[in-house]
Amino acid sequence: ESGLASYYGYAKAGKVGELTCAHRTRPFGTVLRVSYSGRTIQCRVNDRGPFIRGRIVDLSVPAARALGMMSAGVVRVSVD
Amino acid sequence: ESGLASYYGYAKAGKVGELTCAHRTRPFGTVLRVSYSGRTIQCRVNDRGPFIRGRIVDLSVPAARALGMMSAGVVRVSVD
Repeated sequence: ESGLASYYGYAKAGKVGELTCAHRTRPFGTVLRVSYSGRTIQCRVNDRGPFIRGRIVDLSVPAARALGMMSAGVVRVSVD
Repeated sequence: ESGLASYYGYAKAGKVGELTCAHRTRPFGTVLRVSYSGRTIQCRVNDRGPFIRGRIVDLSVPAARALGMMSAGVVRVSVD
């Protein structure tokens, strides 16, 4: 399946070094292969979500970082 | 000044309902006006950062949400 992924700072922790994610329907413990921009990571489902239409997976911050999607959350602003 | 903004899930909490952010040099307590994509919010500096070259401000998640930049962190993926 393909769709939108976001990441969330309050993800449940996995084992040390384990990448985790939230999925609406896959059983807990399932390892998903998530690909973005030519990179693929494996992450273990340990939470439910995302609950926003069109999003198919929520990655923990370490998983999002491993996938290289963190910089997508960076935008240009002006500060006064 | 203009530059890149990111947001961070572990921002220090402000008073209830107060938007907060991290800046490298502005004094703690300073209220910044941050503009993105035609929207402007005010957020109070209560932390130091960001420490990545080219980024000028780190917003707490509520501040990033108010500014409308959360969806910028959403990317298209495939899941197997």
